[in-house]
Amino acid sequence: MNEKGLPEKEVLSLLTKARQKDTSYDKVLSAMCTKPHPIAVKAHMQFISSNMGDFGLFPGTKELEEEVITMMGSMLGDGNACGYLTTGGTESNIQALRTARNIKNKKKPNMVVPDSAHFSFDKIADILGIEIRKASLDREFKVDIDSVGNLIDKNTIAIVGIAGSTEFGQIDPIDKLAQLALSNDLFLHVDAAFGGFVIPYLDKKYDFDFSVKGVTSITSDPHKMGMSTIPAGGLLFKDEACLLPLEIDTPYLTIRKQHSLAGTRSGAAVAATYAVMKHLGEDGYSKIVKKCMKMTDMLVQGTRKLGVEPLIEPVMNIVALDVPDLDEVRKKLRAKGWITSMTRNPRAMRLIVMPHLKETSIELFISDLEMCLGRH
Amino acid sequence: MNEKGLPEKEVLSLLTKARQKDTSYDKVLSAMCTKPHPIAVKAHMQFISSNMGDFGLFPGTKELEEEVITMMGSMLGDGNACGYLTTGGTESNIQALRTARNIKNKKKPNMVVPDSAHFSFDKIADILGIEIRKASLDREFKVDIDSVGNLIDKNTIAIVGIAGSTEFGQIDPIDKLAQLALSNDLFLHVDAAFGGFVIPYLDKKYDFDFSVKGVTSITSDPHKMGMSTIPAGGLLFKDEACLLPLEIDTPYLTIRKQHSLAGTRSGAAVAATYAVMKHLGEDGYSKIVKKCMKMTDMLVQGTRKLGVEPLIEPVMNIVALDVPDLDEVRKKLRAKGWITSMTRNPRAMRLIVMPHLKETSIELFISDLEMCLGRH
Repeated sequence: MNEKGLPEKEVLSLLTKARQKDTSYDKVLSAMCTKPHPIAVKAHMQFISSNMGDFGLFPGTKELEEEVITMMGSMLGDGNACGYLTTGGTESNIQALRTARNIKNKKKPNMVVPDSAHFSFDKIADILGIEIRKASLDREFKVDIDSVGNLIDKNTIAIVGIAGSTEFGQIDPIDKLAQLALSNDLFLHVDAAFGGFVIPYLDKKYDFDFSVKGVTSITSDPHKMGMSTIPAGGLLFKDEACLLPLEIDTPYLTIRKQHSLAGTRSGAAVAATYAVMKHLGEDGYSKIVKKCMKMTDMLVQGTRKLGVEPLIEPVMNIVALDVPDLDEVRKKLRAKGWITSMTRNPRAMRLIVMPHLKETSIELFISDLEMCLGRH
Repeated sequence: MNEKGLPEKEVLSLLTKARQKDTSYDKVLSAMCTKPHPIAVKAHMQFISSNMGDFGLFPGTKELEEEVITMMGSMLGDGNACGYLTTGGTESNIQALRTARNIKNKKKPNMVVPDSAHFSFDKIADILGIEIRKASLDREFKVDIDSVGNLIDKNTIAIVGIAGSTEFGQIDPIDKLAQLALSNDLFLHVDAAFGGFVIPYLDKKYDFDFSVKGVTSITSDPHKMGMSTIPAGGLLFKDEACLLPLEIDTPYLTIRKQHSLAGTRSGAAVAATYAVMKHLGEDGYSKIVKKCMKMTDMLVQGTRKLGVEPLIEPVMNIVALDVPDLDEVRKKLRAKGWITSMTRNPRAMRLIVMPHLKETSIELFISDLEMCLGRH
């Protein structure tokens, strides 16, 4: 660090230079985050110094969090669900599985997750000391129920189902997983980090949430399709007793107990989430999802005309395209500014159609893809 | 959630009502966080949509983070230290001990922490499955070296030292802990979550950082005395190999590897930390610490005149006061708007003299304390 500080103007100019190197979201087709809604940004600013790590000092922000949890619970099939706003999907998944581990109290605990589970489950297995068992997928990239059943043994503490898989946007058969969970007395955690703000607004209805008996906890992230600011993850439990293993005494705070993984915790992102949920309402989120699904359809129709098929009919606004010469084509698209990503198995081009995109971006992408495929 | 969203104006008015219930920091004497510096808030806003979970999209923000880590390393005795900005002290401490656990690879690992360690170490012990052993304190509330030595056995993976304890603001004898760590081949993690931005600027010099041979990792939080926004914690390792156990493949991102506990991660708080460190420089932080220490001296001199002594001469801007009728007096102070907290053992009134306070606040507090003691 310099001994003397730099004048504000100079620092702001350094920030601007750095910001220019960052990607604007305009041609980003690889991200599950997006530009937050303007009202979320305003709320974030107003609550910038609020710390939910000691919410006794910030009872106003705490009330907002409680209302957010109630709203999210209602979206996810149970207005009486409890929980809190986390730093994101990883914290939510850690805490859900930590609860399962501590309540089940097995010597050598294991969890069964679909092979499509987000890479953070490997991180979580290491952190919590839970063996991770990966169930195979069916031809539509949903978890294979028989495979899950075969992996369960007396040391299994939890099954994980994915509602909106990172690579394929697929939804596991949560009702069938729930039957397995109930008959084996296991926790069933649903990772809807991406899907939580999408699936309720799709034309087709899916049983994926607390309306399915047997679902014990759900991850759903406001900072993804919820249009809130980072860090706004959500963790919801059906049963309040699930919060007990997470409880810790907080002797020198204005509160007595805390359930979060982090101590100091952004009140700004809590207010942002409240603001955008209140402002959009069900109608607003429904419109956003419909817009993204319309663009997703455009994308698939356009690429089909180029002879490029999706691996599955898109369930939500995530598309895995079977593009020939994948690495080469992605490189060429990158040179045109498009940022795409890949699925692992099978390898395909992964595109996420987020609200920051426009119909004209989709048209431009298709014509650029045509050029990169050498088919213009 | 409502079906129809509420107009922006109405949402903003709900936010304002909630914010009014939150405590302003003016009379908060219990918090280790404070109002962030205005330049941190500006930077935070400019980078509000930046996500360090996929920093390939945000190479500008990533450069700022690298410079912050270098600046923090220099402040803490090693400009070549490596690390990243976390969500706060808890994540930093988890990751430091996870590294130690995984490298040491003991069947029943344990860690030795001072009895003064923050409550989050109990949380961490549960999460990581590490037995926690608490060493007793000496009469000045520093960890007792013999007690630490007696708790070490063949399953010990790490010793933790505190540089700025939450309750007493005390600094453990890190050099002596380092000797123990070196002779027993253990990790030595220093929790300077609060002290990291204070101790380097105290008049008295302390050996507490990487300049002490044997210190392997340090937690230091920009969102405490670093005047940055939440969530800005810092984790630094002396040796880059310590990052390896934290590494995870990130198949569908623009980057290949990630070391953070969280996936999606605030780029806004990274930019905020950069901005405030660049703007204040060593001189700026030094002035802030001197101002806080001057107010701390005023506070102690004032309470001494009331016959109320601190448990130890304050080392930094944290004071534990031996107030009679503690609960009653705290309640009366609360009625006057003052928020204080408590130490556990011995029970005393705990006051943190943060930069949001003014000399006039200290004078007012002393006169209110006099009244609450019934000595006016």
